[in-house]
Amino acid sequence: MLYLTRVEHFNAAHKLFNPKWDRVRNEEVFGKCANENWHGHNYELYITVKGNPDPDTGFLFDAKKLSNLIKDHVVEKLDHKNLNIDVEFLQGKMCSTENLAIAIWEQLVPHLPHGVALHCVKLYETPRIYVEYFG
Amino acid sequence: MLYLTRVEHFNAAHKLFNPKWDRVRNEEVFGKCANENWHGHNYELYITVKGNPDPDTGFLFDAKKLSNLIKDHVVEKLDHKNLNIDVEFLQGKMCSTENLAIAIWEQLVPHLPHGVALHCVKLYETPRIYVEYFG
Amino acid sequence: MLYLTRVEHFNAAHKLFNPKWDRVRNEEVFGKCANENWHGHNYELYITVKGNPDPDTGFLFDAKKLSNLIKDHVVEKLDHKNLNIDVEFLQGKMCSTENLAIAIWEQLVPHLPHGVALHCVKLYETPRIYVEYFG
Amino acid sequence: MLYLTRVEHFNAAHKLFNPKWDRVRNEEVFGKCANENWHGHNYELYITVKGNPDPDTGFLFDAKKLSNLIKDHVVEKLDHKNLNIDVEFLQGKMCSTENLAIAIWEQLVPHLPHGVALHCVKLYETPRIYVEYFG
Amino acid sequence: MLYLTRVEHFNAAHKLFNPKWDRVRNEEVFGKCANENWHGHNYELYITVKGNPDPDTGFLFDAKKLSNLIKDHVVEKLDHKNLNIDVEFLQGKMCSTENLAIAIWEQLVPHLPHGVALHCVKLYETPRIYVEYFG
Amino acid sequence: MLYLTRVEHFNAAHKLFNPKWDRVRNEEVFGKCANENWHGHNYELYITVKGNPDPDTGFLFDAKKLSNLIKDHVVEKLDHKNLNIDVEFLQGKMCSTENLAIAIWEQLVPHLPHGVALHCVKLYETPRIYVEYFG
Repeated sequence: MLYLTRVEHFNAAHKLFNPKWDRVRNEEVFGKCANENWHGHNYELYITVKGNPDPDTGFLFDAKKLSNLIKDHVVEKLDHKNLNIDVEFLQGKMCSTENLAIAIWEQLVPHLPHGVALHCVKLYETPRIYVEYFG
Repeated sequence: MLYLTRVEHFNAAHKLFNPKWDRVRNEEVFGKCANENWHGHNYELYITVKGNPDPDTGFLFDAKKLSNLIKDHVVEKLDHKNLNIDVEFLQGKMCSTENLAIAIWEQLVPHLPHGVALHCVKLYETPRIYVEYFG
Repeated sequence: MLYLTRVEHFNAAHKLFNPKWDRVRNEEVFGKCANENWHGHNYELYITVKGNPDPDTGFLFDAKKLSNLIKDHVVEKLDHKNLNIDVEFLQGKMCSTENLAIAIWEQLVPHLPHGVALHCVKLYETPRIYVEYFG
Repeated sequence: MLYLTRVEHFNAAHKLFNPKWDRVRNEEVFGKCANENWHGHNYELYITVKGNPDPDTGFLFDAKKLSNLIKDHVVEKLDHKNLNIDVEFLQGKMCSTENLAIAIWEQLVPHLPHGVALHCVKLYETPRIYVEYFG
Repeated sequence: MLYLTRVEHFNAAHKLFNPKWDRVRNEEVFGKCANENWHGHNYELYITVKGNPDPDTGFLFDAKKLSNLIKDHVVEKLDHKNLNIDVEFLQGKMCSTENLAIAIWEQLVPHLPHGVALHCVKLYETPRIYVEYFG
Repeated sequence: MLYLTRVEHFNAAHKLFNPKWDRVRNEEVFGKCANENWHGHNYELYITVKGNPDPDTGFLFDAKKLSNLIKDHVVEKLDHKNLNIDVEFLQGKMCSTENLAIAIWEQLVPHLPHGVALHCVKLYETPRIYVEYFG
């Protein structure tokens, strides 16, 4: 078994804010990430799939097709968006990097072809903070 | 003469939107950067100063002091902020990376000590787009 | 005046081989870079333009337009190509990084709009070797 | 148990082309990677070994010896080469990154000393595409 | 289950030298790393914890708190230090990257809150050599 | 005219300490960089030369020869060394990055061939602090 990773990116605004709490409580918990006027990030997204190489192509999965699949089902919906407002599949969720990674996993799984399994969603919020989800 | 560079970073939300134009015109010019709900970036900021090393320290300028000066006068005012709304020194300006670099230059110049001149503000909006301003 | 840089990339094969010399002489001068069966690189290309920001947009030049211009006139012609064989504007030239940077400059200059001047072509052959050309 | 990784690199030309298929079919499947005149990459190679540190040295394995071993048995045979033509251990194989990672694993395994096991071959074809093989 | 990684760094001096051996033997085994006058590194430290996100915050663990915890219990004790002389928890140990990673694990484990488990200490000695320890 | 840059690296220990001052004064000025037991860095060194490409090779200067020249006259003398103690050409100088860059310039200049001029020594002490010297 082999693992193939494709890296994509998107730029988005968000805030960390729990609507069950008042503003003071949100600022206590989330600090400057709770700024009601938003902040944002250049997210780096590593999608890893696993499987066996096809004898005729040598490919586990065509990296160009994997890139297109990520772009169609994830990047198009997140890039230059406000994660708290603009993204249907994040509605009602806290916009932490953790929840974003899980949501990206759920977006991708239905679209992978037979024989290619999603292995890991790795998401950098900044160059020094990232989350990994393995399903 | 020597040049010393210190790299800092901040995360912020913004949009590109000219209030003199309607929404259709803004979207024609700025594309998805005009999203009225904002997007954001991890900005990387390179501040270069020039001068001669002090014989007693070997320093053109103490890199720790340069870092503190950038943090106090620039990063504190931009990090986890909305550039269009929250930042006094950007009021009334288009929030392009070009204008942001010029504004950062103007913030820093008054605070550099005698013998240390600001040489360049280099600002990455993404890992593949950056602007340089030399005053 | 401001400087705006956009980074693009292309992957290509080449060899260093002077047809005026025999194979022994070429291997003396170019070492393993003279391998007659070719080798290749992931080239990283930094294009810097200079000018003044437009008051209505805050842009010196739209980074998306700059990217498209580089793709149309440079990347499309070099990516996944053999530099010695496939590229019309390199015919008859030694395929060094130096000559490649000069040739890229000449490809781009005619296509920049009024008010936007080409400032620098910076080309990485490997992460530890790069060339800069300022015209 | 600990894991030690050493990063090396090599530059090579290749093409993706299945000799059982005609040129049209190869271009349908592999796109511009099928260019008959070749293209190339700066490959980045991460070799991870596992074991227990020696009490006298604190080393799982001497990183300098690991580097030399990778250079002797892998990098020397691939650097500045055409992967489809020049490399004995790739003869008759599709030159995908997947197959290249498996072949590198097979080259290294016989040469590791007792107590040091090969854990992973990770191979970047570009900064945004990589393959991992765990044997 | 999710994995959260925070990257920190510290700069330190060390040498590889086994006091049971004479200088000749140390130089045979450790080469220039045995220089009795020391050398040093910019260490990059990746700390990965695992757990489940809290429904109210979306966080597995607050990345700011993780950063502070690493700074208080690891970075403060190693940064701008001589690893062989200045660090209590390394006394009597060979200062290899392997032993340093294990010692950092032991420093951190007692300080993680209930529900957050330490998963991996990954430590870069140079950009091309790193060690991983999973406990 | 063209500019060619080659990147090399070395790992070294040093301290910032002015022997004219007592320990208290040194710690006031240099903080933890004055630790009498030393600390260290992975230095990244960018050497830029300028000139015109040779018509027969396409090279301003052979990057392999430039690398060897930097290794022979600079890296060999600094790598895995204590900058304050082990390096003849730094004797009596404060070991700041500024002074180190100037000293490296002076080491290299006499060894460049006719037609190749040294343009810049750029030296990273950490990934976020660097100095440039142009002679």
